[in-house]
Amino acid sequence: MNKNIRQLVENKRIHAAKKELEKMQAADIAEMIDGMNDKTALLVFRLLPKGVAAEVFSYMTREKQSELSVLVRESELEAIIGQLHFDDMIDCLEEMPANAVKRFLKNTSDVKRGLINEFLNYPDYSAGSIMTIEYVDLKAEMTIGAALEHVRQTAPDKETVYTCYVVDGSRVLKGIISLKDLVLANPVSSVEDVMKTNFISVNTGSDREEVAGIFKKYDLLAVPVTDRENRLVGIITIDDIVDVIDDENTEDFHRMAAIQPSDERYLAASVFDLARRRILWLLVLMVSATISGSIIRRYEDMLHTMVILASFIPMLMDTGGNAGSQSSTLIIRSIALGEIRLKDTPKVLWKEIRVSIIVGLVLGTVNFLRILYIERADMVVSVTVSVTLVITIVSAKLVGGFLPLIAKKLRIDPAIMASPVITTTVDAVSLITYFSVAAVIIGL
Amino acid sequence: MNKNIRQLVENKRIHAAKKELEKMQAADIAEMIDGMNDKTALLVFRLLPKGVAAEVFSYMTREKQSELSVLVRESELEAIIGQLHFDDMIDCLEEMPANAVKRFLKNTSDVKRGLINEFLNYPDYSAGSIMTIEYVDLKAEMTIGAALEHVRQTAPDKETVYTCYVVDGSRVLKGIISLKDLVLANPVSSVEDVMKTNFISVNTGSDREEVAGIFKKYDLLAVPVTDRENRLVGIITIDDIVDVIDDENTEDFHRMAAIQPSDERYLAASVFDLARRRILWLLVLMVSATISGSIIRRYEDMLHTMVILASFIPMLMDTGGNAGSQSSTLIIRSIALGEIRLKDTPKVLWKEIRVSIIVGLVLGTVNFLRILYIERADMVVSVTVSVTLVITIVSAKLVGGFLPLIAKKLRIDPAIMASPVITTTVDAVSLITYFSVAAVIIGL
Repeated sequence: MNKNIRQLVENKRIHAAKKELEKMQAADIAEMIDGMNDKTALLVFRLLPKGVAAEVFSYMTREKQSELSVLVRESELEAIIGQLHFDDMIDCLEEMPANAVKRFLKNTSDVKRGLINEFLNYPDYSAGSIMTIEYVDLKAEMTIGAALEHVRQTAPDKETVYTCYVVDGSRVLKGIISLKDLVLANPVSSVEDVMKTNFISVNTGSDREEVAGIFKKYDLLAVPVTDRENRLVGIITIDDIVDVIDDENTEDFHRMAAIQPSDERYLAASVFDLARRRILWLLVLMVSATISGSIIRRYEDMLHTMVILASFIPMLMDTGGNAGSQSSTLIIRSIALGEIRLKDTPKVLWKEIRVSIIVGLVLGTVNFLRILYIERADMVVSVTVSVTLVITIVSAKLVGGFLPLIAKKLRIDPAIMASPVITTTVDAVSLITYFSVAAVIIGL
Repeated sequence: MNKNIRQLVENKRIHAAKKELEKMQAADIAEMIDGMNDKTALLVFRLLPKGVAAEVFSYMTREKQSELSVLVRESELEAIIGQLHFDDMIDCLEEMPANAVKRFLKNTSDVKRGLINEFLNYPDYSAGSIMTIEYVDLKAEMTIGAALEHVRQTAPDKETVYTCYVVDGSRVLKGIISLKDLVLANPVSSVEDVMKTNFISVNTGSDREEVAGIFKKYDLLAVPVTDRENRLVGIITIDDIVDVIDDENTEDFHRMAAIQPSDERYLAASVFDLARRRILWLLVLMVSATISGSIIRRYEDMLHTMVILASFIPMLMDTGGNAGSQSSTLIIRSIALGEIRLKDTPKVLWKEIRVSIIVGLVLGTVNFLRILYIERADMVVSVTVSVTLVITIVSAKLVGGFLPLIAKKLRIDPAIMASPVITTTVDAVSLITYFSVAAVIIGL
């Protein structure tokens, strides 16, 4: 289909191309344009009816949006941006060069310009940054019939009409009423009688991750956002929350792999930016890892006498790191999903102790038999390595289970306490254990 | 508030407790009951009006649902389950003991029993397993006015009324129409004139992760599910998709930490189950890690002559592992979000080569200066370690960037190619590099 439209456009069969485009979803057209070169992209984009063009534009990647912004005429760009949903317009303006934003604002009404500036100022993490102003508001004293008529008249411009918001003269939020309830209610009763006054709302300054948690907990489709005086300033809809959930998860994945998070797409990010986001943590961890080196140097004489001991260091370090990461990942994820709280710390530790003993004994036994019978090492070496392995696994799992909870307590993101930090910590524990056990058992 | 209700109930102040409960959201009541002992939980639960009880029940954790199922009378349980939304009922029946399910089905109408059995048979990963049958269906020949009247009459039992589905006599899906369009349209025109025929639908056997992707791509609130003959069998709503997104992310987090995934909550899982899910991968990785041991043994003589070389092994292994995990995590996440596809493989590798050279040179230089001036090692040792570090980082990042794409190509979950597997692979590369470089530079 994509190829078809590209050919039609390139062969100037404009009418046929338009017909094909009509059959497509806006999101699919956007995806197709994302993959086209600038010239064809512009040709296809200009074939779209005005309303559809704005919708397609809002589905395109940010990079393609900027590319296209440069190519179209100024008036064209303003028409597109002006037709976007308010929240998509804010997102788009945030990415545009400052003077383009200035020019756009110059041709906007005073009221709208004020609103746009206000919205551009909400911090990235806040509920304010993802809300929209396109909701239906009603008055408590309206009849249901009048309310429905109001919905009918204003609906085409609204992002959602499925929840309507009841405000008083000072725009203080008094209640919410779903379109379902409006449709079901007796047309002559008043909005006040039907509206729900026991509703969930969030503040412009609320953390958007918390807002996502509220959507999940109460199965919401939209939530009203109020200011400090309880006045309604916007609403947040579920489609933007789904994006927040993805972003927050990406952030956790990145933090857990010792990368500074960013919401830029991998293929769109510059090489220097990607390098910068990785170097800091690698440096910190590299310097921490030298602690393990100094432990080894302290036992240099022992290694000199029994070089074979060195050959088990990688296995002990890797297994310890993996065992610890398993625990920390389980705990970090459970904290993120709200399944584990600080008060559960004793339960978590008691669970990890029991799990780690089982895991340690199984791995220790397998390892003992393997070293003794397959690698045909000494009995003392086999015992030393296997005992160390058990102790390493138990301490790794305790460290892995405990550090994310400590981070949570200190109000640091628990995701920091993942594989890389755990590995570095556990390495030192495992090496000290190894050489101490060796000293006792082998008697070096 | 929780404490308050607990006290009221325990002091038998039933009326006051009921008043307090009325002010609360169902999800909050469920959370409160989750934290109560069985006796109080049952007391509070029995104070709830029937309709609310079912809703609260659907928000409770599975463990509390089972606990309560055992405590209430059989007839009470049937009443609660019978009032759940169809998809929540299926979830609940899936967790119940087989004979309880049998008993419940015995008291159910033939038609409903057939449906329930059909739904219980959809595989866990499928769209069928998360759909519900509570949607509004319309006929194409209805007038808008008649359709709205139909919505009014059936809405109270439906999970969503915001999208209605138009089917023909054989239940083949012909179009969809939103409640917004119904409200806005002229009451005398026909459903056929207003409905959208160019809509998105999924199949009962579609993978639920793909369905989640479709919701994200097209910003949907609900999607119709059809069978092979294109007949409408159910719908999936966004609230269940949010749960799917969470589940799929948890699965990825677990896989990436070498844990066999499970959707059981950490605190609810048994110790043996937690141990079992961790042991297999740890064993596999432990045995793979012995490759590194055999490399060290091969260079035993070299280590014997220069024991100091052993002390840099942990730092080299850790940094290599971390550098590789950064790349693999970025790529795995980008694949999961659909931002990177197989055809992008050359772009990814070219990007990783450039990023890794920058990262390698920065870390190599810092490391060289640190070893030479702070640890006061030989120039040859400093050079050997630093050159190895640069080569390790570059190869780690290539391996980390490449393996997830190979997994994708082989239709294995790319999340498997995360930190643990990368670390084990990179260890071997880093050790061979280390000793080869040492052999050349030091001339051992």
